[in-house]
Amino acid sequence: MSVKLEGNIFVTGSNRGIGLELVKQLAETTGEESHIYACCREPEGTRAEALRNLTTRYPGKITTIKLDLSDEESISTAVQAVSKQIEDGGLNLLINNAAINQPAPPAPLSATRKKDMMEVYEVNVVGPFLLAKMFLPLLQRATERDTPEECKGDKIRAAIINISTIISSMEKCPETFPMAQMYPYRASKAALNMLTCCQAEDFKKHNILVTALHPGWVQTEMGGEYAPLTTQESVEGMLRVMSSLSKKDSGMLLDWKGNIIPW
Amino acid sequence: MSVKLEGNIFVTGSNRGIGLELVKQLAETTGEESHIYACCREPEGTRAEALRNLTTRYPGKITTIKLDLSDEESISTAVQAVSKQIEDGGLNLLINNAAINQPAPPAPLSATRKKDMMEVYEVNVVGPFLLAKMFLPLLQRATERDTPEECKGDKIRAAIINISTIISSMEKCPETFPMAQMYPYRASKAALNMLTCCQAEDFKKHNILVTALHPGWVQTEMGGEYAPLTTQESVEGMLRVMSSLSKKDSGMLLDWKGNIIPW
Repeated sequence: MSVKLEGNIFVTGSNRGIGLELVKQLAETTGEESHIYACCREPEGTRAEALRNLTTRYPGKITTIKLDLSDEESISTAVQAVSKQIEDGGLNLLINNAAINQPAPPAPLSATRKKDMMEVYEVNVVGPFLLAKMFLPLLQRATERDTPEECKGDKIRAAIINISTIISSMEKCPETFPMAQMYPYRASKAALNMLTCCQAEDFKKHNILVTALHPGWVQTEMGGEYAPLTTQESVEGMLRVMSSLSKKDSGMLLDWKGNIIPW
Repeated sequence: MSVKLEGNIFVTGSNRGIGLELVKQLAETTGEESHIYACCREPEGTRAEALRNLTTRYPGKITTIKLDLSDEESISTAVQAVSKQIEDGGLNLLINNAAINQPAPPAPLSATRKKDMMEVYEVNVVGPFLLAKMFLPLLQRATERDTPEECKGDKIRAAIINISTIISSMEKCPETFPMAQMYPYRASKAALNMLTCCQAEDFKKHNILVTALHPGWVQTEMGGEYAPLTTQESVEGMLRVMSSLSKKDSGMLLDWKGNIIPW
């Protein structure tokens, strides 16, 4: 086990679905010195009630952060808020989970607009790009300084996990395209995979691991009710995979069971 | 030989480099009934002088088209102009060659801005996406109607060629990243590859072939003076590959020699 899921953890899109479940399971399983930064667009809104309840259930463990990934200013403000709260600590884990899928409901090429292509890319790729760029000093700090007791003895003290999807796989496109066209989403996730590869190479010198994960087909708003996996099963699997990642997995796309998905 | 390079051919970014050479060699090699639509941002500008000279050298063979891929209105106007000129003919070949690379000169992550990510995606991915979407009826028409004498007897009468790059390959990222970081460009080209895969599946029912090509490392403004290939060699190779494409190559990334590049 090479990545211990402890320390300061930042999760985007955490008011529902996989993000909410990630925060819940991390709140349950991490030690006292760990802290979770749970982001969503409207932490005070009606769609964040479950996240607020979770925050109340684990007093002092979770900080909710307002974050709109389509807004560079919002990203910068969120990073500053976390930096301030962490003080001279570092960020151990950045989970880029938030994503949008437009047009909604999914539509064929003829009903897909430039706006969809641009907005999906902005949130799904440029948001994670900016977060990694702005958090880099804090991620580096996590690899350099004394980390909480729970993290000691591990080789990898900082990691970025980009939540991708099996439908980002070009090799699998002939199988997956007929059931889910989603041009904007697919193009964005292929680009996110490339971002993962670039960052894995770029941040190797800092000992920061960067891996893309496919959560499986999960019963969420995006996945729909016919999906075979519950968010609980998917997140249990992904956390198990995250905790066992080693350097060879940096720059790869793995599924929630740890299997490599071809690009 | 399954794709005959004849008929109506549309080439983007054709005022210099690979695009200009594509127009030149296509003007030389195609038959009398073939016509080339050569696009660039400023067909009347100083940077399009070589293209204007080429147009004069082959009277009636080449139509220059004003096209700014970052502007949906401009794309729509260009498609309408071509449709009008072709009348009830079809479009046989769409070559998405135009691309930008920002920041220029290439810079590391720290000097790469949101603006670079968005603008490069807009031109390199969303432009080709919209062109294919808007040209689809014309591409379909090329597969359905009687084509010029030169095209007869071929199985594939309409194709889209997306000019990609070896640095779009995620598998090759560990080798290529150190010499060319280019986050925005890489992410855009990975997304263009995904677009290629999606369109290959989507347009299969219309018998429209969609393939991505890597031109090699070429002596252009983008490739620089140390590149080993001249534009002439690269384009000769790519046209040879294009003319020999068959259904199995749809949805693939090939280099200018015809070798498959892994995603």
